Amino acid sequence: MSFYPPSLVNLIKQLSKLPGIGEKTAERLALHILRGSVKDAQALAESISEAKETVRLCSVCYGLADSDPCHICRDATRDQDVVCVVEQGTDMVALEKSGAFKGRYHVLQGCLSPMNGVGPDNLRIRELVERLKKGKIKEVVVATGTSVEGESTANYLRQVLEGSGVKVTRIASGVPIGGDLKYTDALTLKRALDSRHCL
Amino acid sequence: MSFYPPSLVNLIKQLSKLPGIGEKTAERLALHILRGSVKDAQALAESISEAKETVRLCSVCYGLADSDPCHICRDATRDQDVVCVVEQGTDMVALEKSGAFKGRYHVLQGCLSPMNGVGPDNLRIRELVERLKKGKIKEVVVATGTSVEGESTANYLRQVLEGSGVKVTRIASGVPIGGDLKYTDALTLKRALDSRHCL
Repeated sequence: MSFYPPSLVNLIKQLSKLPGIGEKTAERLALHILRGSVKDAQALAESISEAKETVRLCSVCYGLADSDPCHICRDATRDQDVVCVVEQGTDMVALEKSGAFKGRYHVLQGCLSPMNGVGPDNLRIRELVERLKKGKIKEVVVATGTSVEGESTANYLRQVLEGSGVKVTRIASGVPIGGDLKYTDALTLKRALDSRHCL
Repeated sequence: MSFYPPSLVNLIKQLSKLPGIGEKTAERLALHILRGSVKDAQALAESISEAKETVRLCSVCYGLADSDPCHICRDATRDQDVVCVVEQGTDMVALEKSGAFKGRYHVLQGCLSPMNGVGPDNLRIRELVERLKKGKIKEVVVATGTSVEGESTANYLRQVLEGSGVKVTRIASGVPIGGDLKYTDALTLKRALDSRHCL
């Protein structure tokens, strides 16, 4: 490594801190940046600083935002009665991409995971309860993942929100669209059968 | 993509310009940068700007350098009689890592490739000839690759340097150390047999 100029060695070191980027890949990326134009390198450097400076958590929904409240929480055309609870900001983006939800969100910033020391106090559950107390919200759609942690977070939320007068629902789980039954795992098939509905 | 704040969308766009980084990976990297500390993000941004600003080509050997001449060309303890000709700065680093060469380098910045429109004028061959005219160099070791392009570049250099009074040598090719004969390709085996020497 010491055969490269120190500033290049430093760039390789910084790039290799990124997830999934080893030393060899970092070397390749660094040399690509050096081969490119000064303008491209500056654009990359500035986009990192700018994103880090401007992107904050929305104080209402705790999603990624560059304004507070975020554009979804500010949007008066969206359904204000329904709040969708998700684990991460990326889950919110996935739901937005689907275009299937027109209400607002609440990002927990994780899910219950005693193994990793994540308890209810580490998530934005208290903030959700506070939000519900304001009385505008009539339904909470729990859209945490269908992993063990996601399911137990959903169950915990059901207990916490019981008696709050708010309807608590859970997204359906079952065979994915386009999925082949023979490749679907037993647990998913069991869930799909349990949740069967009239045609 | 428009579901993320604009500065985050811009960061994802900039990262996805890097080789081997698609949109999904860029998204993952961008979110990792946002999750990390401001200090880490600044260190990454600054390392890009700094490397791009300080790393130049050495005016003697055309290798990557942050000073001119580079530390190898300035090093008086290195053999000044021998110059090793390589295609890229990365080849020079590979040779330096091996510790097997104690002379100086000349980086061609590519190899002859008529298919890609790279002719002798696009490489640092003229600069090599000028360097040899100063009379200090007694041997040129051609260490271009053993691909078709690398071999033809080596042949071209032999022709150009013929009659210059400088000894022109080529690195040996054959079975790699630790290599198994049964997995070695026919061309390499032929070359290894042709270049056999007394034990």
